[in-house]
Amino acid sequence: MFIPKLYRSEDSILMKEIIRENSFALLISSVDKIRATHSMMMFNEDDPENTYIETHISRANPQAKVLQNGDEILCDFLGAHTYISSSWYDHINVSTWNYEAVQIYGKVELMDHDELYAHLEKLTSKYEKFQQCPMMVKDMGKEFVEKEMKGAFGIKIIPTEIFIKQKLSQNRKETDFKNIISHLETSDDNARKIAEKMKLIQK
Amino acid sequence: MFIPKLYRSEDSILMKEIIRENSFALLISSVDKIRATHSMMMFNEDDPENTYIETHISRANPQAKVLQNGDEILCDFLGAHTYISSSWYDHINVSTWNYEAVQIYGKVELMDHDELYAHLEKLTSKYEKFQQCPMMVKDMGKEFVEKEMKGAFGIKIIPTEIFIKQKLSQNRKETDFKNIISHLETSDDNARKIAEKMKLIQK
Repeated sequence: MFIPKLYRSEDSILMKEIIRENSFALLISSVDKIRATHSMMMFNEDDPENTYIETHISRANPQAKVLQNGDEILCDFLGAHTYISSSWYDHINVSTWNYEAVQIYGKVELMDHDELYAHLEKLTSKYEKFQQCPMMVKDMGKEFVEKEMKGAFGIKIIPTEIFIKQKLSQNRKETDFKNIISHLETSDDNARKIAEKMKLIQK
Repeated sequence: MFIPKLYRSEDSILMKEIIRENSFALLISSVDKIRATHSMMMFNEDDPENTYIETHISRANPQAKVLQNGDEILCDFLGAHTYISSSWYDHINVSTWNYEAVQIYGKVELMDHDELYAHLEKLTSKYEKFQQCPMMVKDMGKEFVEKEMKGAFGIKIIPTEIFIKQKLSQNRKETDFKNIISHLETSDDNARKIAEKMKLIQK
């Protein structure tokens, strides 16, 4: 991901927020050919000195058959994003797209049985705790969970490079910047999210 | 992208719909290393016998510096997607994610000056025609447009393989299927979109 300086962030809180809210992300490898799988990812910071991304894909997925310890992976998390019309500026210009994104390059580390169990338990809890009748891993029965685990390929991604992008019209002057926000506020969910983000860095 | 048979689609109308509605997509290459850029893509079917994806990225983007004619690219279009809680089923099971996605492998073909101009004109029109005061390329002035074009790296992606995935709980029985729809209908935009898609393949 190319990030001009103006759009580059070093904010780890923002990074974690983008990952948390856009955790159905893309796992990209190039071992034999380019392969990309949408999967449910989590940022693990149980040990702040050794953070990593955790996820799992199906063992039947060809990507699972080629990935090995140490392989380079790219995880792509696209946050809110929306079209920005240059007709909202007070001068001639080209239109663009505003967005937030995190890309993490890392090394694959295959999970063992207990790590995969812990991962599924944590992942399930992340989403189920908001349900009316949560279906937690511990309620599924040992035999059932063991059977499911046989079909899952769990990996950790140990980060080697982290890129955080916030492209939020930082290159616009105050009047255009405010006008963009006004237009986005009357649009869809994604546009309103970008408007909120722009207000946080308000000129 | 791994697609079990149940979730595989061959529907080119669906493919074009997913691309059109999720056209801020990911351009992935692995020439020197894995690189992925979010960019505004379009499906070009001016000649139905020779369709392709068209997009552009910044010339300053390191990906633009390595891409050459014939390189393999993967374009990833993620459509609506949402968490599916197994607590909505009438039996014990694991939770999952429903989604629609298109992945297109293809060969890069660099655009020449006139192709890039036509691409920018078409792309701008796609979005600007809905604006109150559309800012079309022809209104920007030749000098300005030529200057902007110098910074843009336009490419066509000639498809070699196309994958269309619709993971919409097709493996669930009727009562669970309907219960999932009911839950999604009371949730956010993405969930409601998936509910609509599920209704179209209603059991």
